[in-house]
Amino acid sequence: MNIQKKALKAHKKLGGKLNIENADHLNSQLKLSMYYTPGVGAVSKHIAQHPDSARELTGLGKTVAIISDGSAVLGLGNLGPQAALPVMEGKAMLFKEFADLNAFPIVLKSQKTKDVVKAIVEIAPSFGGINLEDIAAPVCFEVERELKKKLDIPVFHDDQHGTAIVVSAALTNASKVVGKKFEELKVVILGAGAAGHAISMQLKRMGVRNILVLDRQGIIYKGRPKLRWDKKEIANKTNPRKVRGSIEDALAGAAVFIGVSGPHLVTQKQISLMADKAIVFALSNPTPEIMPDKAKRAGAFIVATGRSDFPNQVNNALVFPAIFRRALDNRVKQITDKHKIAASKALASLIKRPTQEMLIPRIGDNRVLRKISKVIN
Amino acid sequence: MNIQKKALKAHKKLGGKLNIENADHLNSQLKLSMYYTPGVGAVSKHIAQHPDSARELTGLGKTVAIISDGSAVLGLGNLGPQAALPVMEGKAMLFKEFADLNAFPIVLKSQKTKDVVKAIVEIAPSFGGINLEDIAAPVCFEVERELKKKLDIPVFHDDQHGTAIVVSAALTNASKVVGKKFEELKVVILGAGAAGHAISMQLKRMGVRNILVLDRQGIIYKGRPKLRWDKKEIANKTNPRKVRGSIEDALAGAAVFIGVSGPHLVTQKQISLMADKAIVFALSNPTPEIMPDKAKRAGAFIVATGRSDFPNQVNNALVFPAIFRRALDNRVKQITDKHKIAASKALASLIKRPTQEMLIPRIGDNRVLRKISKVIN
Repeated sequence: MNIQKKALKAHKKLGGKLNIENADHLNSQLKLSMYYTPGVGAVSKHIAQHPDSARELTGLGKTVAIISDGSAVLGLGNLGPQAALPVMEGKAMLFKEFADLNAFPIVLKSQKTKDVVKAIVEIAPSFGGINLEDIAAPVCFEVERELKKKLDIPVFHDDQHGTAIVVSAALTNASKVVGKKFEELKVVILGAGAAGHAISMQLKRMGVRNILVLDRQGIIYKGRPKLRWDKKEIANKTNPRKVRGSIEDALAGAAVFIGVSGPHLVTQKQISLMADKAIVFALSNPTPEIMPDKAKRAGAFIVATGRSDFPNQVNNALVFPAIFRRALDNRVKQITDKHKIAASKALASLIKRPTQEMLIPRIGDNRVLRKISKVIN
Repeated sequence: MNIQKKALKAHKKLGGKLNIENADHLNSQLKLSMYYTPGVGAVSKHIAQHPDSARELTGLGKTVAIISDGSAVLGLGNLGPQAALPVMEGKAMLFKEFADLNAFPIVLKSQKTKDVVKAIVEIAPSFGGINLEDIAAPVCFEVERELKKKLDIPVFHDDQHGTAIVVSAALTNASKVVGKKFEELKVVILGAGAAGHAISMQLKRMGVRNILVLDRQGIIYKGRPKLRWDKKEIANKTNPRKVRGSIEDALAGAAVFIGVSGPHLVTQKQISLMADKAIVFALSNPTPEIMPDKAKRAGAFIVATGRSDFPNQVNNALVFPAIFRRALDNRVKQITDKHKIAASKALASLIKRPTQEMLIPRIGDNRVLRKISKVIN
């Protein structure tokens, strides 16, 4: 039985991967009176008089919303809100397992920036933090920017920043393995959506000078006709020599390929155009841009995917639970660019001697939580 | 230590009365691959192709939103969204304890009908049912009516219909205890908000002819100047002789007083105006309209409150978990008036020989779930 069939069977058996449980038993008249009426009235009145106390008298300080509109479910596209639920439940499992946080999936009917923002602002008083998930570009950028203005709790679009943190950490260590200078790597990013945008910005901020980003129309360059505003940002920050062309043009002599696009979008022939000791991060989920064995046969020296069933899992799941845990514990109101770079460096530093198949810690490595806690405050 | 202090201390100790737990351990690479990527992709694709399967492949079929805008928290008034959270968490505990449902508290920033409706419609794909809670009249009526039009999952305003079901069941049995005919009871309801409105409608539908409802301006009658639309509905359905006047005028010779208003709003002197074998339901939470001992000394024969620390707890908590459980299990799309009357009769029938201090089952009586399951389908 393949993993797809196993997954369907396991999901059917569970009927939902999360359970909401009572933190104490309701097994006496006293407890009913304390946790419900009349006792709970005193707690509500106390919060009304001392709003800050909501953090300690309710679950706010340990509760995160995982919010999606289902417009970009994994690398599968616009599947709609309820089809996104299994992924959101999976994310919530990771929040619990790796950071002991209560994360609750909220999927939205609408996919318009205005409506998504409005709905999230409305429900925000229920949560200590907002994790945006699987929302397509450019709505994801607009939603995040608006929410950061309107809310005083951390808002974090995992597919952008979680991915950028983990990719940049893995690339930091990969550059050591291949003996090339990080800043001088020629990096080709296929996919200019949420992840591609954030990765290019983060690598740029960390000093990488030669970055090319491609969308369906080819290499993004300053002045390309009809560039959407988010792609203009990419054009302004990358591709200093205004190179034009196809994926083949981009990959010729490149040190690094980062795929955040879709299944099977890169061929062996294309990978074979890369420089010696090529680094290939084929991160489309669940199906990579090129399968690891094929990439290796085409000359890749290091291969990473987003999946847990191959070596080098480069997946935002490695950091988002820890980042939220520490942001909530330390009452951090915004996750900044500084936080993201510090988190990337902290993550990379956990692997003292990186190798071809061990660039970053595995998901579940409990050193991540401790290490991240030092940089998110 | 009084119950208020105990409650505050217990809430501080817990820091949130709910925990979201994983339904299975993530303790192997296989499980990560099944519940998260790549396996979860197959589940999302399956739901996109077969929307109905979301019910069995995710938690939808056992997950209820408990939604409040904090505009009418218990009988304490408009305390705002975060002060409502402890009550919503308490409700969620009851959902879990008495019906094994996952209920999640959502508190909203806005208290306007339009905004509340819009937010709930947006997040509705995340839930199997919507339980409205502690929303002030008339917004609660408008919100419920709009949502019933727009959503195909059950929407139930507990403070209206849960309360009306339990009150009418308790009154059915109280009338037997005092040996008066249910339909002929003269019933005085103090409070024309969510609960008062729903109780008057439910009693009327169940055949009670002589109902007087009072708000701050006194008895509601057809033609009273400046009646809001929801109070016009009350005027049209109750008070057939268009009686005018104060609480004293209403209570003179009344068989039943039902308080759904606020703390200490009825005096012993007022209760003493009632008929022989008076039935007093002083249901304001956490503090009743009149404390049971005082009501008894004023001549009340049967006294009920909404609280768990006195006999005869008349509280919607007795039915809402069961109603949602059965509505979700049976995929009932709306809770109708017929359901509500059937639920009331089912509840009353569980007490074969009602007495002064035992009108309806206690909260936690597991016969309720079984009995309700027969009428919600």
